[in-house]
Amino acid sequence: MAYSNRNFVYHLRLIKSYFAGQAGGDVVIKVGIVGGTGYTGVELLRLLAIHPQARVDVITSRSEAGMPVDEMYPNLRGHYPGLVFSEPDTARLAACDVVFFATPHGVAHALAAELLNAGTRVIDLSADFRIRDADEWACWYGQPHGAPELLPEAVYGLPEVARDKIRDARLIAVPGCYPTAVQLGLIPLLEAGWVEPQGIIADCKSGVSGAGRGAKVGSLFCEAGESMKAYSVGNHRHHPEITQGLSDAAGQSVGLTFVPHLTPMIRGIHATLYVRLNGNSLKRNDVELQQLYEARYKGEPCVDVMSWQSCPETRSVRGANVCRIALHRPQGSDLLVILSVIDNLVKGASGQAVQNMNIMFGLEESAGLAFPGLMP
Amino acid sequence: MAYSNRNFVYHLRLIKSYFAGQAGGDVVIKVGIVGGTGYTGVELLRLLAIHPQARVDVITSRSEAGMPVDEMYPNLRGHYPGLVFSEPDTARLAACDVVFFATPHGVAHALAAELLNAGTRVIDLSADFRIRDADEWACWYGQPHGAPELLPEAVYGLPEVARDKIRDARLIAVPGCYPTAVQLGLIPLLEAGWVEPQGIIADCKSGVSGAGRGAKVGSLFCEAGESMKAYSVGNHRHHPEITQGLSDAAGQSVGLTFVPHLTPMIRGIHATLYVRLNGNSLKRNDVELQQLYEARYKGEPCVDVMSWQSCPETRSVRGANVCRIALHRPQGSDLLVILSVIDNLVKGASGQAVQNMNIMFGLEESAGLAFPGLMP
Amino acid sequence: MAYSNRNFVYHLRLIKSYFAGQAGGDVVIKVGIVGGTGYTGVELLRLLAIHPQARVDVITSRSEAGMPVDEMYPNLRGHYPGLVFSEPDTARLAACDVVFFATPHGVAHALAAELLNAGTRVIDLSADFRIRDADEWACWYGQPHGAPELLPEAVYGLPEVARDKIRDARLIAVPGCYPTAVQLGLIPLLEAGWVEPQGIIADCKSGVSGAGRGAKVGSLFCEAGESMKAYSVGNHRHHPEITQGLSDAAGQSVGLTFVPHLTPMIRGIHATLYVRLNGNSLKRNDVELQQLYEARYKGEPCVDVMSWQSCPETRSVRGANVCRIALHRPQGSDLLVILSVIDNLVKGASGQAVQNMNIMFGLEESAGLAFPGLMP
Amino acid sequence: MAYSNRNFVYHLRLIKSYFAGQAGGDVVIKVGIVGGTGYTGVELLRLLAIHPQARVDVITSRSEAGMPVDEMYPNLRGHYPGLVFSEPDTARLAACDVVFFATPHGVAHALAAELLNAGTRVIDLSADFRIRDADEWACWYGQPHGAPELLPEAVYGLPEVARDKIRDARLIAVPGCYPTAVQLGLIPLLEAGWVEPQGIIADCKSGVSGAGRGAKVGSLFCEAGESMKAYSVGNHRHHPEITQGLSDAAGQSVGLTFVPHLTPMIRGIHATLYVRLNGNSLKRNDVELQQLYEARYKGEPCVDVMSWQSCPETRSVRGANVCRIALHRPQGSDLLVILSVIDNLVKGASGQAVQNMNIMFGLEESAGLAFPGLMP
Repeated sequence: MAYSNRNFVYHLRLIKSYFAGQAGGDVVIKVGIVGGTGYTGVELLRLLAIHPQARVDVITSRSEAGMPVDEMYPNLRGHYPGLVFSEPDTARLAACDVVFFATPHGVAHALAAELLNAGTRVIDLSADFRIRDADEWACWYGQPHGAPELLPEAVYGLPEVARDKIRDARLIAVPGCYPTAVQLGLIPLLEAGWVEPQGIIADCKSGVSGAGRGAKVGSLFCEAGESMKAYSVGNHRHHPEITQGLSDAAGQSVGLTFVPHLTPMIRGIHATLYVRLNGNSLKRNDVELQQLYEARYKGEPCVDVMSWQSCPETRSVRGANVCRIALHRPQGSDLLVILSVIDNLVKGASGQAVQNMNIMFGLEESAGLAFPGLMP
Repeated sequence: MAYSNRNFVYHLRLIKSYFAGQAGGDVVIKVGIVGGTGYTGVELLRLLAIHPQARVDVITSRSEAGMPVDEMYPNLRGHYPGLVFSEPDTARLAACDVVFFATPHGVAHALAAELLNAGTRVIDLSADFRIRDADEWACWYGQPHGAPELLPEAVYGLPEVARDKIRDARLIAVPGCYPTAVQLGLIPLLEAGWVEPQGIIADCKSGVSGAGRGAKVGSLFCEAGESMKAYSVGNHRHHPEITQGLSDAAGQSVGLTFVPHLTPMIRGIHATLYVRLNGNSLKRNDVELQQLYEARYKGEPCVDVMSWQSCPETRSVRGANVCRIALHRPQGSDLLVILSVIDNLVKGASGQAVQNMNIMFGLEESAGLAFPGLMP
Repeated sequence: MAYSNRNFVYHLRLIKSYFAGQAGGDVVIKVGIVGGTGYTGVELLRLLAIHPQARVDVITSRSEAGMPVDEMYPNLRGHYPGLVFSEPDTARLAACDVVFFATPHGVAHALAAELLNAGTRVIDLSADFRIRDADEWACWYGQPHGAPELLPEAVYGLPEVARDKIRDARLIAVPGCYPTAVQLGLIPLLEAGWVEPQGIIADCKSGVSGAGRGAKVGSLFCEAGESMKAYSVGNHRHHPEITQGLSDAAGQSVGLTFVPHLTPMIRGIHATLYVRLNGNSLKRNDVELQQLYEARYKGEPCVDVMSWQSCPETRSVRGANVCRIALHRPQGSDLLVILSVIDNLVKGASGQAVQNMNIMFGLEESAGLAFPGLMP
Repeated sequence: MAYSNRNFVYHLRLIKSYFAGQAGGDVVIKVGIVGGTGYTGVELLRLLAIHPQARVDVITSRSEAGMPVDEMYPNLRGHYPGLVFSEPDTARLAACDVVFFATPHGVAHALAAELLNAGTRVIDLSADFRIRDADEWACWYGQPHGAPELLPEAVYGLPEVARDKIRDARLIAVPGCYPTAVQLGLIPLLEAGWVEPQGIIADCKSGVSGAGRGAKVGSLFCEAGESMKAYSVGNHRHHPEITQGLSDAAGQSVGLTFVPHLTPMIRGIHATLYVRLNGNSLKRNDVELQQLYEARYKGEPCVDVMSWQSCPETRSVRGANVCRIALHRPQGSDLLVILSVIDNLVKGASGQAVQNMNIMFGLEESAGLAFPGLMP
């Protein structure tokens, strides 16, 4: 008997669906990208370069209009011959099947409506549509919400929670990197009602790429290298997003202390989560806790529940669209420790965006995403 | 008016004490080191090379006997001409004023008594005398305690807690790296009785040098680099040491969840500590909390309480014998977050050992230790 | 008009060849791996996991027999369900279409003949069959050559030089990492006879993974990190391999000074090559030099000649099976500087091995290899 | 017999000179720093904090005026209480004994004359006075030289070459980082006339701090980390400075190919130098070559000639004011390989500046500089 790898099976299925698709005529997704010069932009290009059913037609950048994408990102040489950053052009974008926004917050507010009206679906990697309450958004982002009328239909694109809504959505808000790692790590317990909704602690460690490609002193090699520090303690903008998602899972308002740390690595988020079992659940044993997670994520292509007391490494998901999770209950006390790791640029951003696209267009959910992490 | 640096003032004092000392005749401390080939060993040599009143007479290593120290550690070239690792020789060690043990656990058990009997003082950087209870030690270290009769006189060498005992001690147990960062971060609150003694969380991030110079796969550049992971969740050997120290401070038994993480940097520990204000103290405001710490550490040469809501970086203490601490109270809840950073090889090991030596021999406490961190 | 990415085109071709292949019946290559626990082993598994026409049937390891591959390498979780390291078993290996050796030198000597006799093709990633002269091999590797009778048929697997021989080869010696970067950087000039064959300098910088996964002090994070050093100056084992390849290209014996350096990064080789134009070629201008390289590598799927005076970064090929090359002629002197970068584990080892397999089995040469580098 | 460390001896000498100096009355050097916010600025502050005879009176910064130095550089907390960046004020600077310029090029041009006229000595860490020919300076720096009248008296502050001139100099041009490593590595051979003055190759690898603290994309952690690249091939501004120094040593014009590389580490320069023995010297054996270097640098406090065929690591000089050099002659050919390492911020900038100050003011040359490198 022989072992077969997942990709091989995937390709077989792909080939079948491809020919099936040709009949239907729409298997190739025409993609536009707004603001592709940052790290989530180049990561989208990397992922779409190996996606069997997507084709990048337009990529815009005000600052770099006219520059070939592979001049800015030489890793892409040979993959996008002729693709050049262009000035934003709504007509060209509207001719796409889907447009990704890899922009700072505020940009998608301004453009999304026009594209949606033209029938183009929108996947926004920024924070513009993640918070349901426009006032809360305005409070955390320090400016009025630019498109509150779109909020009701925006779908928060965490496939493990909202797969069905994503399928039919026109507008996706791709979750932030910290929120992805924290929510996937906690929702099984919160949905089951086994833990106290107050006093949740998320001690998170992020690689430096989470700070983006902007030229800031704090992101310099000589500033962020060989050092560890906390930052934005108590006032990070992902706080309301995480709280919203956890409260949804719990069915009630949760209380969260969220402490992000800057870690001297390029990619990766390691979330160390502390929650207390509540009264009735204190009697749960290790097997029950483990099974809760395995059952919740059974069949999920992008969540990997490791065995009890494992210690996932961020490098095991480097470049991969996977969240690895493991559970601990030190000294058998009421305090659970959940470890959750992702690549902030993949499952925490561009990979999750592609996963949403796959769902939206009826493709295999992990199309173009079924590769292992780069290790070492 | 002019600014004067601390070192300048220190040198003036040194010069005075030196001449005073000459009268007394014993200002030069003769130092022996057992097991100097690991990272705490070379760090001792680095620190003693710039110590104005210490002189290394003997350094032993079974495995490297005959090798010049600066062949193994070329950074020391020019500083210890002629100093060679020698086979352990109790007589030569006993001729020293003080002997440092930079050895794996178990070694100091066997040799300490003999040296103490010869009148040589012992500063042990290993875990051999840190736990007061020999049975608990045996349980965590998986072997019987080799010198329980010495435990009653061993002094746990955290100068900020036990300065007076250190002065007269013959046998010092230098605190571990994690225990130093965690205890200094928490004892003001515990001594004051302002926080719940149960449910304390220490989420700690350590550089790779904490794992020592042993050739282990997990410490390879390609395994530990560009990645983050937790390890030894709930069963790290520093757990009982931290609990003992915190319980002493609290005057009662504390409950601790300790999660260490391996961080891709060479030096540094970042402790992120979570404690809950207790009933009476919930009304304390930020200023009172900050003042508690400033008062507790007033005049301490090696603890630096930063301003409220600061975020200390481990690099700010790289190579320096300092613990930097800052306090946060996110969203004004009952949960305090204390950030505490040290260099694990300095204030977390060899620097603290030298600080103990300085106290034991009546020297300026920061003699040889008054240099800034290496930044960048 | 729309841009199409290379992968998309590739998949279309794949699908066609797949169905064509089905007719032939043997499109799925059955793969065995000997010694898969090192970095080239796990990299083979990573690459084969996304290869559309290969299936790993056996992977052997004496030391880890019984361990699931994804327990040792959690990045592979989900990709090889059930695949376990097994004791070497010639019969099972011989049932494969091809066996990769990812072993220390000496191992393939002992096993290759048996497999070849059984009709299994062998791709050896070690140095066992790279040097044509058994005596020279013995001299550099300090032991007699174990299979000199196989040397005449062994093909040195640099596809850009020996594609035709590879196609029909039974036994491939995959070039070393340094030799790949240096040879690809120099052969156009040497083949053309434009440079002095003596006095060639190869100043090479390698990431730490080049030293393998063995637990050696010199490869520790705290030893190799944040530092740069040369090593094995004048006596590195890749010296004779490089000299052999360059001499072949030049049609005469070349003189080489090769200085490797250990660089604080996980992956990557940067070769900085210095050669002197010879008498007749001193009049060549920049355009002619550039065109020499572009013509030599025209159509090569895995060599990318960048524009004149570019500076390729190793990260642009991280994880990718590409060699990027750029030419400089500082101050217009007779000295050319050629910069050549690869990922030592991909184009310098496992990727090149897969490229050889593709050629040997008549697959698309870049099947499973057509992904961009991971950047950042 | 006991080993004594160099620092201890140094302190004894210091104490004697101190008391002698008190009679003379000027043992404390009053220091001003212009432009102290960059990496060479903070490094000056770090070094002067442990200098026994220097006191920083003024530090200026237009952009950060009003900010305490230890707020920008928390490693300095406790060392400079009350020291605040101030607006440039010539009168206050002129009241110092010496003023260091840690500024971009062009700034010292404008201010040096005024300070010199006021009797204040100037040590310029920038490139303003390194090139003797004002026109050549203008050509490489793209602007007219702002103070050509000062060039005749400016002393190029490489103590190993110009110690006597430095003693009496009013204006020092501190050598650049690459020039220091390359010149110290080559001048023994060039002064002796043993090597060809043409065709010299300097393949240099620098840590990222060499690029300064400016917020540039290329210096980001995610751009410079985990990668290696050459840059400024053939047109780096240190080219003319190196050529000038090597030509001085050779007594004739030299031909240099200089290829700098950006290396993923914070500090350190590794220069790999290739020179050819000339006709008469081809018969020199290894011992003679080694002795040439040992004799040339005999007694030098800041140059360490390692044994034949050593491989110095940059980390061995991290934070230390030392240049370590080793010689190789691979395969006994005519090509010598010299390896030379420094910390670019210490012996390559601020440490060398302090060394110059010590010489200028008749202090022990290594006062405040006699500490080992930080390893690991």
